[in-house]
Amino acid sequence: MTAPLKTVEGSDDLSAQMMQLGAAARAAARQLAIAPTEQKNLALAAMERAIRAHCEAILAANAEDVAEVRAAGASSAFIDRLTLTPARVAAIADGIKVIHDIADPIGAVTERWQRPNGMVIERVRVPLGVIGVIFESRPNVTADAGVLGLKSGNAVMLRGGSDSFRSCRAIHDCLLAGLREAGLPEGAITLVPVRDRAAVGLMLSGLGGQIDVIVPRGGKSLVARVEAEARVPVFAHLEGVNHVYVDRAADLEMAKAIVLNAKMRRPGVCGAAETLLVDAGAAERHLAPLVGALIDAGCEVRGDAAVQQADPRAKAASEQDWGTEYGEPIIAARVVAGLDDALAHIARYGSHHTEAIITEDQAAAARFLNEVDAAIVLHNASTQFADGGEFGFGAEIGIATGKFHARGPVGAEQLTSFKYRVHGTGQTRP
Amino acid sequence: MTAPLKTVEGSDDLSAQMMQLGAAARAAARQLAIAPTEQKNLALAAMERAIRAHCEAILAANAEDVAEVRAAGASSAFIDRLTLTPARVAAIADGIKVIHDIADPIGAVTERWQRPNGMVIERVRVPLGVIGVIFESRPNVTADAGVLGLKSGNAVMLRGGSDSFRSCRAIHDCLLAGLREAGLPEGAITLVPVRDRAAVGLMLSGLGGQIDVIVPRGGKSLVARVEAEARVPVFAHLEGVNHVYVDRAADLEMAKAIVLNAKMRRPGVCGAAETLLVDAGAAERHLAPLVGALIDAGCEVRGDAAVQQADPRAKAASEQDWGTEYGEPIIAARVVAGLDDALAHIARYGSHHTEAIITEDQAAAARFLNEVDAAIVLHNASTQFADGGEFGFGAEIGIATGKFHARGPVGAEQLTSFKYRVHGTGQTRP
Repeated sequence: MTAPLKTVEGSDDLSAQMMQLGAAARAAARQLAIAPTEQKNLALAAMERAIRAHCEAILAANAEDVAEVRAAGASSAFIDRLTLTPARVAAIADGIKVIHDIADPIGAVTERWQRPNGMVIERVRVPLGVIGVIFESRPNVTADAGVLGLKSGNAVMLRGGSDSFRSCRAIHDCLLAGLREAGLPEGAITLVPVRDRAAVGLMLSGLGGQIDVIVPRGGKSLVARVEAEARVPVFAHLEGVNHVYVDRAADLEMAKAIVLNAKMRRPGVCGAAETLLVDAGAAERHLAPLVGALIDAGCEVRGDAAVQQADPRAKAASEQDWGTEYGEPIIAARVVAGLDDALAHIARYGSHHTEAIITEDQAAAARFLNEVDAAIVLHNASTQFADGGEFGFGAEIGIATGKFHARGPVGAEQLTSFKYRVHGTGQTRP
Repeated sequence: MTAPLKTVEGSDDLSAQMMQLGAAARAAARQLAIAPTEQKNLALAAMERAIRAHCEAILAANAEDVAEVRAAGASSAFIDRLTLTPARVAAIADGIKVIHDIADPIGAVTERWQRPNGMVIERVRVPLGVIGVIFESRPNVTADAGVLGLKSGNAVMLRGGSDSFRSCRAIHDCLLAGLREAGLPEGAITLVPVRDRAAVGLMLSGLGGQIDVIVPRGGKSLVARVEAEARVPVFAHLEGVNHVYVDRAADLEMAKAIVLNAKMRRPGVCGAAETLLVDAGAAERHLAPLVGALIDAGCEVRGDAAVQQADPRAKAASEQDWGTEYGEPIIAARVVAGLDDALAHIARYGSHHTEAIITEDQAAAARFLNEVDAAIVLHNASTQFADGGEFGFGAEIGIATGKFHARGPVGAEQLTSFKYRVHGTGQTRP
């Protein structure tokens, strides 16, 4: 039986405790900013070993969390997000190894140039500082976010859901062990230990300047609250209302494979396609096969008149369907009057996440890739590639849909800033 | 006599008018995002010609603004910031030419890599969208910000001070003429035409999603208001509490030249040095010459006991002096116990803007450049180089002291975001 969870009486206590934790994180961040790569990797290797060695303890803590929510009548989807298994614990450890193996982004010189007066200027990567991660349900975020932050030289303050606290704490104990083994401060990865919603508000306010950025990982209401209240920058992962546009010059077999994969591989991920647009110039040949293939695969298709005519199993789409992220095996579909119309539809209904065109017409592809305003725009590939691992980043803390600082998959490199180092020989400015 | 300025009755009218302007800016931004470099440059060349051709009209409008503030009893510093002269108007036109001549950042591919499955991924520069510039006094910001935004494919909404409105409008007329000549929409550069403080609040709220980022250019209270109220990202230019650290291994003549230049070249710019730190190991040889040279040059020196002993003309520093940005020929000075102590002082009192070390000890320089957390860190060069032009950016909209998206001089390249273009050949994700 794990130790009773600490509860905090009174907001003053909470505030003071949070500020203390923030100060420790800030102090740790200063040390992490100049920690050698080898030391960070030592910690990561030790964390990976600790997770594997303590699998039983982690699963036992998780069983207590699961029993509690089950008794409270949670849905099976909720329980599934919360539940850890030996395979899932192994995946956590595997994820730490992946981060251990990626290149250290800190200290990399991304640009270097010389001025006419002889000064040499370098742009070099530096950490952001302290990252506040506010998440729900999935205990693995404790490790995923913690190690990504550590590799990029940042301190991380983690605030998970109260329902997964025992699981998160068991994982966090392993992370602390890794930090200690490498001689890094425990303030580098903090598990905010209170069951008080007010802790979230304090983090969103920036904890008196101790937190530099907030990353929310969870459902829409969490992200919405964060976006509304945060007084510090947020790497928000908003909607993924993604489109696949099948152009008149598309190869039908390729279109079928990509459309099916984009919707049905995992309908619940943010990179899933939510709307199919078919060029009127391709409709006669492609529409029925595409709609039919989707329905045959178990997907509900909600379409315009042309779509319904192409396959009577298709339902009617309403205005709300355009711009809806279903997160399920449901897709909206309509016929558009060529590339311009597709671009207009995406500009109107898209969420700037991930958009794809399927075509053998290079000029059409070039226009689409150039003109669509989204984090990720693909030609002849599935929208399901919207993922840090698929991009080669090793891992990600989420997919940012805004335009500031981070866009698309947020990996270790995106959790950095930069500074200028100027090498002079005595130059003064006239 | 210029036309009477439009005043707006009632907040509903203002709100509706601002939303209309925002919508026009947003529509213009979409067009600018894909406008060819040649077209943008055509507009810039026409704007430059128009400014030069209408110098008289601009000066006449400015004379009316100046007469009004003079009658209201403004300070001479205030009047100077507001006043245009033939030389200053020529400088505005010259600044437009500089921006015309820099490379177009939009469309540049900053990274390109291939995945094991054959997909080629590119990271390409795109505009931010709509930039809201809120500024005081200096009419030239109308042109400086407008053309920087245009070159980087952004629409700009400008809200100047009411005291410079006629001047800004005369300049803006020239910008509009340039846009029209190039066939670009007038919504690309908007001069927010109301004398209502509420317009600022509407911009800070993001104008219903039409404004993507706010850039404040003005005094501390303006920047503070913007930082406190803005619901969209801000490229804030905060304090420049900059330090020059003279290490024991510094060359005295180089140190004198740099320290004098850093403080006295232009004491009011953000890159001016505000505190001198002298290594105890150099104090015997360097302290008196450095302090003496500053005082001889007309600078007031406020120092610790060692500084006062080195030169009796030096005044005593209080705790407030560390961490003060004087903006005048005043400098704080103290002796520190070596590099570690200098780093600790800067970490405690610095504003993360610009910091410099003077030394011939390469190891000390490397540590300083590596460990100081500031936008710009210099070795053996003056802090007055903290400037977009000096960095080779052509121009800047300000110097950002935060760590998000932009840091240091904010030139055309920093007013961009990026997106990923993925070139596939039919890949689906397993």
